[in-house]
Amino acid sequence: MKKQLKQNDARNRRIVLNSRPVGAPRDDDFRLEEAEIPQPAKGQLLLRTLYLSLDPYMRGRMSDAPSYAAPVGIGEPMPGGTVARVEASQHGDYNAGDLVLAYSGWQDYALSDGQGLVKLDPAMPQPSLALGVLGMPGFTAYMGLLDIGRPQAGETVVVAAASGAVGSVVGQIARLKGCRVVGIAGGSEKCRYVVDELGFDACLDHHSATLPQALADACPQGIDVYFENVGGAVFDAVLPLLNVRARIPVCGLIAHYNDQSLPPGPNRLGLLTRTLLVKRIKMQGFIIFDDYGDRYGEFFAAMFGWLTAGKVKFREDIVDGLENAPQAFIGLLEGRNFGKLLVRVAPA
Amino acid sequence: MKKQLKQNDARNRRIVLNSRPVGAPRDDDFRLEEAEIPQPAKGQLLLRTLYLSLDPYMRGRMSDAPSYAAPVGIGEPMPGGTVARVEASQHGDYNAGDLVLAYSGWQDYALSDGQGLVKLDPAMPQPSLALGVLGMPGFTAYMGLLDIGRPQAGETVVVAAASGAVGSVVGQIARLKGCRVVGIAGGSEKCRYVVDELGFDACLDHHSATLPQALADACPQGIDVYFENVGGAVFDAVLPLLNVRARIPVCGLIAHYNDQSLPPGPNRLGLLTRTLLVKRIKMQGFIIFDDYGDRYGEFFAAMFGWLTAGKVKFREDIVDGLENAPQAFIGLLEGRNFGKLLVRVAPA
Repeated sequence: MKKQLKQNDARNRRIVLNSRPVGAPRDDDFRLEEAEIPQPAKGQLLLRTLYLSLDPYMRGRMSDAPSYAAPVGIGEPMPGGTVARVEASQHGDYNAGDLVLAYSGWQDYALSDGQGLVKLDPAMPQPSLALGVLGMPGFTAYMGLLDIGRPQAGETVVVAAASGAVGSVVGQIARLKGCRVVGIAGGSEKCRYVVDELGFDACLDHHSATLPQALADACPQGIDVYFENVGGAVFDAVLPLLNVRARIPVCGLIAHYNDQSLPPGPNRLGLLTRTLLVKRIKMQGFIIFDDYGDRYGEFFAAMFGWLTAGKVKFREDIVDGLENAPQAFIGLLEGRNFGKLLVRVAPA
Repeated sequence: MKKQLKQNDARNRRIVLNSRPVGAPRDDDFRLEEAEIPQPAKGQLLLRTLYLSLDPYMRGRMSDAPSYAAPVGIGEPMPGGTVARVEASQHGDYNAGDLVLAYSGWQDYALSDGQGLVKLDPAMPQPSLALGVLGMPGFTAYMGLLDIGRPQAGETVVVAAASGAVGSVVGQIARLKGCRVVGIAGGSEKCRYVVDELGFDACLDHHSATLPQALADACPQGIDVYFENVGGAVFDAVLPLLNVRARIPVCGLIAHYNDQSLPPGPNRLGLLTRTLLVKRIKMQGFIIFDDYGDRYGEFFAAMFGWLTAGKVKFREDIVDGLENAPQAFIGLLEGRNFGKLLVRVAPA
C-alpha cells in the first residue's frame, strides 16, 4: 500500500482488499483508493468515520475459505465497525451531528440508509468505548463467559489474549463472579498489567517454553472454564488440565488465522474428543451478534454499571490515520497491540 | 482364558482381569476363577446372575489411563450391569426370588447390601430389556439425543453404530421427532435391518471407501445432530457436513478404545475447533448415570410407552455362558455383534 494521503473534506479515501493473503497479510494485500465524497439521496445519510475498530475476525473475511460470513470481494472496502458522525442527512430519523455506531468499514465516508445504525449519546465522553468494552468485544466476553461458560464462585477460569479487548473483559467479569482467574498474554509488560491493573490472580507469558507446567502450577484445582480465543499451543496446554464438566466457549482462534494447511501430526482430534467424553465437557462456538443479538441491552446495562463503578477497567491502543490501518491490523495478528486496537480516522 | 467350567449351584465362577490389554483385548487378558459361593450375612443378599450386559465402556476400565471411572485392578472381577435373581436374603427389603437390576459384574454369584439395586417386576416377560432398550444404552440414547442433541422436526440426524444398542434407539427417537435419520453401520445386513426394520431413512456401510461422498449424498441438507459414539473415520466424514448450530452429543468413541498412541498427522484438532467456531456448534460429552441419573424415571416412562406401542424396536444378541463373555466382548469391539450384546449366565 503506497499512497499515504491524509483524511480531508474533499475526497473519500477507502482501503480495499487488493489480494487475498497467503499466510499472514502483507501491506500489498491492501490498497488505498480515493473517490468523490458521495452525496446522500432521499432516505440516506452521509457518515464520517471517527473511529474504526480493528478486530481479528477481519482476517477471516480476507479469505475465500468457507466461514460464517461471506468473504470481502477483491476491490471491495474492508469491513469493520465504526463510530461515525452524521455529516448530512436526508433521513427522517437522523440529523447532522448525530453520533452513531455503524458498520461502515475502512473508509473516511460512507452512505447509509439507517439500517443497522445505533445512535450514541452525542455527549458520550469517550465514544470509542462503543467499539470496545461497551461494544462487540465486551459483548462477546460477557455472553460467551456467562451464557456458555457459566462460571461459579470458586471455579478456575483461564483466558488467553488476556490483555486484549475480549480477554481483559472475560477475566474481570470472572473475578466479579468470584472465580480464580488465570490469564495468558504475550510478554511480561502485558502480564503485569493483567495482574496489577485488571486484578487477575495470575498471568503467564505464552512465549514461555514452560507454559504447560506454569499453567498447571497456576491452576492447582484444574480448569473449569477455558475461554478460547486463541487456539494453538495455549489450547494444547489447557487440554490436560480441564476438569470434569468444564466449559469451553469458542469465540476465536487467532493462532490459526494465517494457517495455510493443517499442521503436522500427530492427529490430536481424537484426543480432544476423548477428553470431551471422559470429562463430560461442553465446547461451543458462537458468533456474538448472530447468536445473542437480542441480549445486547442486558449486556450494555450490566457493563455500563461496572464501568461507572470502576469494577471493569479497559485499555485502548489508538493508531492515528486510516492510512495506517493495514499496518495496525497486521500488528494485531502478531499480538503487537496492547489493549483494544482502534484507528482514529477523524478527530471526534 | 483356558478353564471352561459351566455354571453350577456349588461354586462361584468369576472372570477377572488377568492383564491390561495392549491394543485390542485378547483372551489371555481375562482369567476365569472359581471360589465358594458366598453366604449373605445380616443385611446382605445373595444374587445369582441371569444376564450380564457387555458394553464398549468396559474397555476403558481395563486400562489404567485416566478416565471417568477407576480402572479394574488386576485380579478383580470385570464390572458390568446384570439382571439377577435373589437366591437368599438377610435383607429386610428383599426376598428370595426377587428380580433385580444390579451391577454385580462378570460372575455367577455376588453379595449385595442392597445399595444401587433396582427391583424389577418378577413377572417381566423379558427382564434382559432392563440392560438394553429400557436400561443404560436406551437411557444414553434418550438423554444424549433429546437433552444435548435437541432435534427439531425436519432436521437431519446422523448416528453411527446404528444397529447397536445405543444407535438403534437414537435413530428411532429421532424419527419419532420428525427428523431425517441417516445411520452408519458395519455391513449390508446391518444396514438393511436399520432401514427396513428400524425405519431409518438411509444407512451407509462404514467399511465403504466412499463413505464421505455417500454421507454427503444422504444428507443433502447437511447434518444438524451427529450422535457421536464411534469417532475415527466416521467423524472425519461428518465434520465437513455439519450445519450452522449443529449439536454433537458424545457418548462413546469405540474406534479409539484400542488406540495405543495418537494417530499420525496432519493434526486436525484445530480444524475441529475452527468448525465449532465458524458454525457455532455445540459438542458435549456425557456419562449417562452421572449426568442424568435423576431423570431415569422420565426416560423409562417414555420408552416403555414407545415399546408397548411398537414405536421402538430392538434386537438382542445373546451369548450363552459366562465362560464365553471374553470372546463375546472382544467381538463387540470389532463390531461382530448384531444388536444389544448380552450373556445369558443362568436360565431366567
